[in-house]
Parts: sequence; structure tokens; C-alpha cells
Amino acid sequence: MNNRIHIKKFGGTSVGSIEKIERVAERIAKDKLQGQNPVVVVSAMSGETNRLVGLAKQIGPACKGMAYDMLLASGEQVSVSLLALALEKRNIKATPLLAHQVGIKTDALFSRARIQEINTEQIEDCLKDDHIPLVAGFQGVTNGNTITTLGRGGSDTTAVALAVAFKQSECEIFTDVPKVYTADPRLIEKAMQIPKLSFEEMMEMSSLGSRVLHCRSVEIAAKYKIRIHVRSSYEETEGTWIVPKEELMENPLVSAVTHDMKTVIIKMYPVPSGTAFISQLFTALAENNISIDVISQSYNKEGQRLAFSISDEDLEEAKKIMYKMIEPEKVTVIENLAKLSIVGVGMANHPGVAARFFKALNKMSMDVHLVTTSEIKISAIIDKQHLSQAAEAIHEEFKLGNAHAL
Amino acid sequence: MNNRIHIKKFGGTSVGSIEKIERVAERIAKDKLQGQNPVVVVSAMSGETNRLVGLAKQIGPACKGMAYDMLLASGEQVSVSLLALALEKRNIKATPLLAHQVGIKTDALFSRARIQEINTEQIEDCLKDDHIPLVAGFQGVTNGNTITTLGRGGSDTTAVALAVAFKQSECEIFTDVPKVYTADPRLIEKAMQIPKLSFEEMMEMSSLGSRVLHCRSVEIAAKYKIRIHVRSSYEETEGTWIVPKEELMENPLVSAVTHDMKTVIIKMYPVPSGTAFISQLFTALAENNISIDVISQSYNKEGQRLAFSISDEDLEEAKKIMYKMIEPEKVTVIENLAKLSIVGVGMANHPGVAARFFKALNKMSMDVHLVTTSEIKISAIIDKQHLSQAAEAIHEEFKLGNAHAL
Repeated sequence: MNNRIHIKKFGGTSVGSIEKIERVAERIAKDKLQGQNPVVVVSAMSGETNRLVGLAKQIGPACKGMAYDMLLASGEQVSVSLLALALEKRNIKATPLLAHQVGIKTDALFSRARIQEINTEQIEDCLKDDHIPLVAGFQGVTNGNTITTLGRGGSDTTAVALAVAFKQSECEIFTDVPKVYTADPRLIEKAMQIPKLSFEEMMEMSSLGSRVLHCRSVEIAAKYKIRIHVRSSYEETEGTWIVPKEELMENPLVSAVTHDMKTVIIKMYPVPSGTAFISQLFTALAENNISIDVISQSYNKEGQRLAFSISDEDLEEAKKIMYKMIEPEKVTVIENLAKLSIVGVGMANHPGVAARFFKALNKMSMDVHLVTTSEIKISAIIDKQHLSQAAEAIHEEFKLGNAHAL
Repeated sequence: MNNRIHIKKFGGTSVGSIEKIERVAERIAKDKLQGQNPVVVVSAMSGETNRLVGLAKQIGPACKGMAYDMLLASGEQVSVSLLALALEKRNIKATPLLAHQVGIKTDALFSRARIQEINTEQIEDCLKDDHIPLVAGFQGVTNGNTITTLGRGGSDTTAVALAVAFKQSECEIFTDVPKVYTADPRLIEKAMQIPKLSFEEMMEMSSLGSRVLHCRSVEIAAKYKIRIHVRSSYEETEGTWIVPKEELMENPLVSAVTHDMKTVIIKMYPVPSGTAFISQLFTALAENNISIDVISQSYNKEGQRLAFSISDEDLEEAKKIMYKMIEPEKVTVIENLAKLSIVGVGMANHPGVAARFFKALNKMSMDVHLVTTSEIKISAIIDKQHLSQAAEAIHEEFKLGNAHAL
């Protein structure tokens, strides 16, 4: 298939009620009448996945695996069917397709499966019959036809993977957030919309708490150079384009400020010297699916110190594991924290960004608990009470309030 | 596979909450530990199918077809997954299976598909691995892997069809009604439990408004002589067996009294003579999926009269159709009716049953609007206000209050 197709993904809030589904159907119908060739991906209606997770949790917190993924996959089955009915009502032929019907093949890692291959035949047949293919996002099947899911937000990945399978150069992600901002507008009034952002920056932002895109979808987009257009489900205006960094006119030093309020820090002192204890601890946490974010370790003649941050959702579980390995009195937990980060591809080649970052924080004489950096980001964990003020200072320091103005 | 397996179907009310699903899991776990080889079929959680139908109705009343069936099939996907999680919690290995995974092949008549074939391989593989196969009821797939559904109550049919595919002689249907009664106990206090009932009687009862079993499931059971054990989900006691009539010790004249309060009668006078008008009318109603139940037609020199009954749910739709074909002033609609029926295989060879039926009604000097009979049933449509009294009189007349006593 060499024809241009238009891959459009609608998120959970965009299909969160029948009224909203009707609006999405209107929009697709209009695009179709204007000559587009849409292939649509939908998420579950907002709230539905949480409802299903809630049912499973009533059975037990440890519910995972084959049955759990089958359960969650029903959410997209509902939304894709309803969207088909809404299009049919408008006399637009549409075919709802589940992962097993399309042939979206994944590995067998339940709840975080990775797409291996997408069969394009079924979708091509639909398009030939002038039907709009409506693909249930978030789900896949193994070679043995067992249902898998791609992790929360996985419908973005379905959309980008379809773009790869159909050799397209771009894909549209429709959300209730019309653009990507230089900071969360609820936190910083002066936050600006960003017209273009590199894949690398978007990946950092996704893993730093920005909920705009599923991290894995940006990874795939970067690998195959699929330009992602993040835009409003309700407005016709352009949104933010996620593109290869070569396409950016200039490499902004800092593109955005992000924050995450789910961080807790665990400090241990003294811990047994050497790396054996730390390695055992981190292995035990990883085996329980607890991700460690920032790590700081130091050693002097008084003993070895360890500090690391995890998500507050994992704290109770982490305590159970840790207290089997070390006496509770050697452990301190710090809560009410926020992680504040800056992201920018220009940072890699410009020394001094870190200095300016700390100088801005320093003016407010606040504690910085932990710091971590990568080529294109700097993160600091600070007390939650300082977040708003600190974010504003940094937004100001790097002139984000007008840097992206068109 | 020559081994005995135990096909068990649990209805919507039996899996209507997580607590109830846990109870079902307990029961299956116990049966398994006692050496049974369960193959389980489940319906959607009670209320779930109605919720999904409600979502579709918000889009439009005419929602039907491929997308509608895919929507409804999600209900069983949820319950089968949750039951698997509840079994896993009890360390019982279980595999949830959807229609496309099992290979439950149907024709392509959406919302009332008929099972053509069931592939036994996947279920056999589960059993070999000592996993309990949990099959989503109510759903099937066409040869092209399009999802279909079997009609409300269709999970019963899934269970019986599995018994046929696995060459079993019986199957268990677990419900919140522990047995089949001689009448609705909410209507008639003296209603008795029936230990055995013939397939033919059960079929009549199913189509006469008894909600115990899906009519098609009994048809298949009759054809392949699958004995159905209808029993309580919560108690261990025996329920009612649905069996070939040769197995009944005696052929009771009347086995049960049933009733249905969804009937409305439409009378037309005069209608054009000949059969052309009637045939056109009934065709138009059928094309809109409106079933006609009792029909009465008479002709004399004053003109042709027609009366027929339909479900009150179809009345508004039927009016729209009729009023295009005949002037409204020639049509009378009678509401607030009830259809009262008696069913019994012995009736066929015993004249005088109809006489006793009418004699009992006559004592109360009530109007009988329409009557219909078959070899093993008599139905009369009466005013709703007389239902309770009439049902009691008939229950008494045929001594159902003690006929089935063990």
C-alpha cells in the first residue's frame, strides 16, 4: 500500500462519554469527506480502565498476567465498537478491529508487552472496501493468540506502530490537551505552547511525569522518524509536532520545565560496605516491579550512605522488602517531595546550564535532596512546598515565557 | 478426548459482583479438588449487558450488527477474566478463553448467531496442562473471525454446544433460581419445585416467558440428548433435570403454569379482504425484528378482522409501521394484559385439558382476549388484573401444588 493514510489516535478523555464519541465521529466523518483516508486508534473511555483495575484489585492486589490483560483489553473493545456505531449512524462505513483481528503481534510480557509486528492485510482490505478501520489501541496478541496489553497509555504506541507498519511519515495524536507546554499551565501561568519538540526531549518529558505521550511510542517514533502531531480533539488548530531534532530551527537550551509529585526518597545509613548489599536490595525491588529513579551513594570513613527515590505508590511495598534486609532504624523516608526538571536538546553542547539551574534555586535558599542529570535534562528533588516558586524561577531564568513564541 | 469432563455454566447473577465471583471460584475449586474435570462457561456480570446496551442506545435505537455484537461481547470478557483471577488467587490454574481463542464458529447473523462448530483442541490443551478452561459464553466468531453473539441468555447455548462438541451426556447450569417451579413462586405461593422436566416442556416454557434457560440451548440439548441439570449456584442440593421425555416416570398432564406480562394485543377492523394485506403487514413487522405471538383472524360478511399479540417493547415501533399501512382509526391497542399458559407433555394424548383450563378461568367470569395452543401447551391472554387469581385457579385445577412432590 503506497497510498497516503491518516493515522489518528483518540485518547480516553476524547472518547470519555457518548457525547464525546459522537464528536470524534463528526470529526472523522469530516476528515473523510475532505478526502482523507483515516485509520483510527482509540483508547478506552476515560475511567473505564480504572474501573476494571478496581474490580481486579477487589480480588487481590497481586492480580497480573494473562487474565488481567484480557480484562483490561475489554475497555478498548467497548470504545472501538461505540465509535463504529456512531460513524454508522452518520452513514460512514467503519469496521471495529481488535488486536487479534488486525494481527498486532507482541511478546508475552503481560501489562507491558512490546509490539513485534503488525499485519497490514486486514486494514488494507477495509480501506479497499472504503470502510474506516477502527483499531482498538493498547492491546496485542502473542503468536499463540493470547491477549496482551502495552501498559498505560499504550494506545499511542499502537498508533505509532501502525504508522511504521504502513510506512507513513506521521501520525496524529488527539488529546484534550491541545499542545505541549513549556510547563504545566496549572502550575505556571506564563507557560507557553511549544510548536515543535524533538523526540529526545519528548521522551525525557514522558519519563519525567508529563502525561502527554506514552514513552515507548516516542521511542518507536524516534527510531523510524515518524513525526507525531499532538493536537486538540476539539479544535482544528495546529498542536505540537514531535520531530527529529534536525528539524528544529534552533536547538533551544531548555525547552520545558516538568514536575512530578509522586516522588519519595529513602535514605539508609550506615549500609554494609561494598556493593553486595546495594545490588541485592535493588534486585529485590526490581523483582517486585519497583522502579528506582535517582540514586546517590557515598562512602567515607564513617560508613556508606545510600539514598534513592521511588514513586510514592511503591512505598508500602518497598518498605516490606527493605525491612527484611536492613534494620528499620537505619532507614529514613522523606515524603512531600517534588521532582523538578528541565529538558532541552541544546543543553548537551552548552556548559553552564546546570549552574544557572542551581543559581535560580539557590536564590530561594531551599534544600535540594537529590539531583540527577542526563545529556538533555537536569532533575532536582525538592520539598513540595517550594515547587511552584522554584518552577517559576526556572521558567523565568530560561526565558521559557517567550522562547517559543511564534 | 474420551475422558469425562464437567461442563458448568454460571449465569449473570451468579457472577454479578466480585463477592459472588469469589463464591463461584470456591465452588469450582472444590469440585476440582474432588476429582472433577470442570470446563466452565460464564455470562456477563448481571447488569453489564444492560449497561452496554444503554451506551449503544444513547447513540441510536437502531444500533445493530458487527459493532454492536463486539460491544456486547466485552461483558463476558470481563467476567471470564475476573473468574480466572479469583481461581488463580486460590492457586487453581485456569485459562480464560474468548470465542476466537476456542474457535466457537457461528453463522454471521448478528445478535442471534447460531453455533456451527466448536473446535475442541484449545480446551483439550488446557485440560492436559491441568488448567481449568473458562469459556466466555454468549459469543462466537464467524469464519472470518468477526465477533457475533447468540442472543440474550446465549451462554446456556454455549454450554450445551460444548457438551455436544465433547460428546458429553450432561451439563450443569448454575443459576440463582435453584430449580424450575410449577409456577412463579412470587405469583403462586404453593408453587412446587419440579425434579424432572422434558426438553419439549422446557422449550415451551422458555418461549412462554420463563427465564430459566435460553430456548435454543434446550433445542440443541433435545437434538443431542444432553441432560441439563439446572441448579443453585449457592447450594449443593439437586435442582431440576431437563431430560428426554422417555426418562420421565410418568407424563404429567400439566407440568407447569407460566406467565408473561409483556403482551399487548393489536386489533384491526376492517382489514382488506384476502391475505395480501396481512402478509405485507407481517412481513414489514418481521423485517423490523418484531415477533408476532398469537394470531387470530376471522372473516364474515361484515368484513375481515385481525388480532395479534406482540411484546410491549415493540409497540411503538409497530405503530409506526402499521400506521403507514392502515388508518389509525381501524386499529385498537389493548394493553395491561398477561399471557397465562400451561405446559405438559401428557396433554398431547389427553383430551379435555383445554376444557378444564377454560372451566377454571370461567369460574371467575373474566374475558379471554386471545388463545393459542400447541401439542403440549395452552396459552390465554387475559387482563393483567386477573392474572394472580387465574394462575392460582389453574395451578389448583391441575393439582400442581403436590403433583411433583417427591
